[in-house]
Amino acid sequence: MRELLVIGIGAGDPDQVTIQAVKAMNRADVFFVIGKGEEKRELVDLRATILAEHMDHEYRVVDIIDPPRNRTPSDYAGVVDDWHDRRAQLFEEKFAAEDGIGAILVWGDPSLYDSTLRIVERVLARGNLSFEYSVIPGVTSAQALAAQHRIVLNRVGEPVHITTGRRLREGLPDGVDTALVMLDAECSFTHIPGDQVQIWWGAYLGLPDEVLISGNLREVEDEIVRVRAELRERKGWIMDIYLIRR
Amino acid sequence: MRELLVIGIGAGDPDQVTIQAVKAMNRADVFFVIGKGEEKRELVDLRATILAEHMDHEYRVVDIIDPPRNRTPSDYAGVVDDWHDRRAQLFEEKFAAEDGIGAILVWGDPSLYDSTLRIVERVLARGNLSFEYSVIPGVTSAQALAAQHRIVLNRVGEPVHITTGRRLREGLPDGVDTALVMLDAECSFTHIPGDQVQIWWGAYLGLPDEVLISGNLREVEDEIVRVRAELRERKGWIMDIYLIRR
Repeated sequence: MRELLVIGIGAGDPDQVTIQAVKAMNRADVFFVIGKGEEKRELVDLRATILAEHMDHEYRVVDIIDPPRNRTPSDYAGVVDDWHDRRAQLFEEKFAAEDGIGAILVWGDPSLYDSTLRIVERVLARGNLSFEYSVIPGVTSAQALAAQHRIVLNRVGEPVHITTGRRLREGLPDGVDTALVMLDAECSFTHIPGDQVQIWWGAYLGLPDEVLISGNLREVEDEIVRVRAELRERKGWIMDIYLIRR
Repeated sequence: MRELLVIGIGAGDPDQVTIQAVKAMNRADVFFVIGKGEEKRELVDLRATILAEHMDHEYRVVDIIDPPRNRTPSDYAGVVDDWHDRRAQLFEEKFAAEDGIGAILVWGDPSLYDSTLRIVERVLARGNLSFEYSVIPGVTSAQALAAQHRIVLNRVGEPVHITTGRRLREGLPDGVDTALVMLDAECSFTHIPGDQVQIWWGAYLGLPDEVLISGNLREVEDEIVRVRAELRERKGWIMDIYLIRR
């Protein structure tokens, strides 16, 4: 492989890819599809659908099955680091076996809570392979959430804090009133105190199963917890995100 | 006007619009183009180019020239509020004069430091007009910046703070090590103390004039200040953004 394209493909709606992304896809000879295990099979299929819809030539698909990962470690950063090393080794093997231009499609955008670029840098740092690579930006689930709720993320002139459920449970920094929360499998919004908090929540944004709930946090939190659990049970996976504002 | 579409069109590269945005544009009969005065004529022209490139039918264009605004007020929020009121009145007049489906194209995405949705809500709140409206998300300059520098905005599992130059000068909240800074006309990064700060700066992202500078903040800050001033002088306007990390 002489070149790698890391392409953001939006939050789920196949029309949410950019023209730039479609052109990049059509330069590629081979797509590396990273699977996270059977529970996300539907997402892998959706990515394949997006690809099939926009490609105008034949292409190869190479599956990369992620090595297993401890999801509840005490040493979070250390475990992630070790996992990325094992991934880098696996990616190197897959890249080395291919000719031409490779591509990796990333949900949302590669710049936000996605490990693809870190793995690519690790592969290059190992020194066994050499290739050009570039990044094509995509619409993130943050933008998709805001669009569906028709909201502006920031108050006039004020900051927006993008964080994870894990971090949210440790409390928001002083002076931060607006937080966009990703990667929250544990409904950490229920830990936010106060009666004057608004939430805008969305799951499966841009997909036929999209669900939106918004309102005063104390009034809707139980509903979100219940709906989220039902959806996750029914489909076997969930991708959700929310904005909270004090 | 019976429906309004607020469409994010990406950070500047005409290929950075989504297929969803192109489809939405092609539903519109009339485009409201908001001009900020002559210094941004080039941006208005670029928006017209994006439109012309993607439209497959005839359309009307209605210019809305923003009322003047005090850019250095003591009461920032109050002045912005009053300005939005005057804008809402002006938009109402323009909307009322048109039939069919209207659209407004927004640089980046309508959810981040953009006032279009606030104005639309104000127009509706005035109660004189009634119309459906929806938002089509776009790639933000944050994603464009990250893509061009090939960086991930967040450290593993850590937050990203999106803020303005004005806020940055007041200092970052405790526990915030990574900030994405928009709307900074005053090179506020020079106010960040310390020798261990990295910066990734970009101007005119996705345009032929794109400039990228990155490195240790203390080593590159003078260069960014100088280059930024030269570019602004030469073109008459600048759009830039940066990520800093302690």
